Amino acid sequence: MKAYPNITAPDERMRPLVQEKIDGLNKPKGSLGRLEELAMQICLIQQTTEPALNHPCHILFGADHGIEREGVSVSPREVTWQQMINFTKGGGGVNMFCRQHGFRLVLADMGVDHDLSAWPDIRNRKTAAGTRNFLYEAAMSRNEMEHCMQAGAALVDEQHGQGCNVICFGEMGIGNTSPSSVWMHLFGNIPLPECIGAGAGLDNDGISRKKNILNRAIENFHACHTDADTEEIIRWFGGFEMVAAIGGMLRAAEHRMIILVDGFIMSACMLAASRLCPEVLPYAVFGHAGDETGHRRLLETMNARPLLHLNLRLGEGTGALCAYPLLQSAVNMVCEMNSFTGSGITRYF
Amino acid sequence: MKAYPNITAPDERMRPLVQEKIDGLNKPKGSLGRLEELAMQICLIQQTTEPALNHPCHILFGADHGIEREGVSVSPREVTWQQMINFTKGGGGVNMFCRQHGFRLVLADMGVDHDLSAWPDIRNRKTAAGTRNFLYEAAMSRNEMEHCMQAGAALVDEQHGQGCNVICFGEMGIGNTSPSSVWMHLFGNIPLPECIGAGAGLDNDGISRKKNILNRAIENFHACHTDADTEEIIRWFGGFEMVAAIGGMLRAAEHRMIILVDGFIMSACMLAASRLCPEVLPYAVFGHAGDETGHRRLLETMNARPLLHLNLRLGEGTGALCAYPLLQSAVNMVCEMNSFTGSGITRYF
Repeated sequence: MKAYPNITAPDERMRPLVQEKIDGLNKPKGSLGRLEELAMQICLIQQTTEPALNHPCHILFGADHGIEREGVSVSPREVTWQQMINFTKGGGGVNMFCRQHGFRLVLADMGVDHDLSAWPDIRNRKTAAGTRNFLYEAAMSRNEMEHCMQAGAALVDEQHGQGCNVICFGEMGIGNTSPSSVWMHLFGNIPLPECIGAGAGLDNDGISRKKNILNRAIENFHACHTDADTEEIIRWFGGFEMVAAIGGMLRAAEHRMIILVDGFIMSACMLAASRLCPEVLPYAVFGHAGDETGHRRLLETMNARPLLHLNLRLGEGTGALCAYPLLQSAVNMVCEMNSFTGSGITRYF
Repeated sequence: MKAYPNITAPDERMRPLVQEKIDGLNKPKGSLGRLEELAMQICLIQQTTEPALNHPCHILFGADHGIEREGVSVSPREVTWQQMINFTKGGGGVNMFCRQHGFRLVLADMGVDHDLSAWPDIRNRKTAAGTRNFLYEAAMSRNEMEHCMQAGAALVDEQHGQGCNVICFGEMGIGNTSPSSVWMHLFGNIPLPECIGAGAGLDNDGISRKKNILNRAIENFHACHTDADTEEIIRWFGGFEMVAAIGGMLRAAEHRMIILVDGFIMSACMLAASRLCPEVLPYAVFGHAGDETGHRRLLETMNARPLLHLNLRLGEGTGALCAYPLLQSAVNMVCEMNSFTGSGITRYF
């Protein structure tokens, strides 16, 4: 496995100093619950008792999936490119939440099966017109994987260079719950049936068909590999948009940025990233958990406790974006709330 | 029981029209989960498919409690007036969240045991310098109760007159978990021990003492009453700030405003309000549930499913305020997200 020497977990030595500040704020100790824990995490990431959220950015990667040809999704492939274009017009779910919470939205075509070059708001990072079908072969080559990792990282570099210190990732790619389920199974050691849900609307027959196809794909993979490492699992099953997100997450941790993690697919990417480099996890704030058992199990493998439980399953990063005001609240608490000392209030409990 | 003929539940006849609009938005059907349910509730309250949140306001009522003299709280009584003054300076938890979410903050002294008349930002609605001790007698007279109901209602009238259509209530009153627990017990038919938690920091001895005192108070109450109605229970145990909140909630429902409900104490007030007039409940959006079993049981009696679970227990209305961005998201979804028809996207699932 390639090492990531530039990613280190936040220095824990300032924890007592931050805790002292939080406990001195004008409120019963611990009474702001999860916001206090979130404030601690942000202070440790930023190594300060005066945290700030600057230039929040949401990077949405789009790509198509060879496995979609097997009918694992009820939605047709063309929805990927149609939605990517729609996002440039401001009418998608992700646009609405980015506007509400002041996020810059960056769209990147990592491998959509459609020519999107006429839309200048979509960064052209196209790897190919969709991945290959992982039922029969690796979804992408090593070069393609490296391209996606680098492209995701470079987009994070760009935002970081402009002052962004909190970043969110989203995806658009019909069929991408399939690679997510496989990664969850292989990286999380969770039985495959528990990794497959109704997704975006499959009926029982559809779920059964999806299980069968993913099972065959995993058998084929094992038949071709005696000792597959993390990178090989990522390469064989991954989507271009998912690998770009992994590259982006790792680079964001390197820059000590807060990484706001969305639902099932982005959680699967964070799991994969954490298998490459466990030190990425302390930078992750998990925004949302859906109702699906699978997603909850996936989060448990990372000891992640998401902030919201709203039964969202739109994707695009929307669950994570909805959690952003809580990050702002945590930061406001540390920076704006007065202390017992300053306010002359009897310390209460 | 006094009737509230001016409060009627929202007309359900436009539900299919709203559902049709939500289902036609550019997303898999139902994929925005709780936000879709919230959007439906808001559309029904406002009787429109183009909802809007205007001039959100948070009214914070402060008062002291006679029962506090029995040592049911670890925090001293003077914290009530100290915090009320602190709120005028912007340094409290509630100030921070009001600023973040654009809420006007209205402070009202309903019966704080301190002269607050020198602070013009605190509306002087003082009933008395705290309630009487409900261990021995009714906390307030009928006139005092009526004064509080009317004062709460009048403050809501004022905000409504200025265009406010979404209102939140908060409280500051050391000792007010005690009346809340008793109301929950008597209105919710929940065994008293389940209605009493650690509150704002009691240890086991403290909880045991609180149980004993509340038990005696309830026995005394029953000894004095053969057939007490809802109003009598409110009057005997209530805090001035809590009765004002009940008056405010009922008036808000009359004006068809969205009522954003905070944690344990405000949920107990909403329960009491709903015993006076069940039609208030469809106007309530429950913002936050704490980890305490008691609060969850209390919410269940109203079939309430709060939006957030962040383990907050600061009071002041802070839990409800933290949920506000989700109301904005629900409204944005209905008003800003484009439709399949308008966007030319293949309907997907």
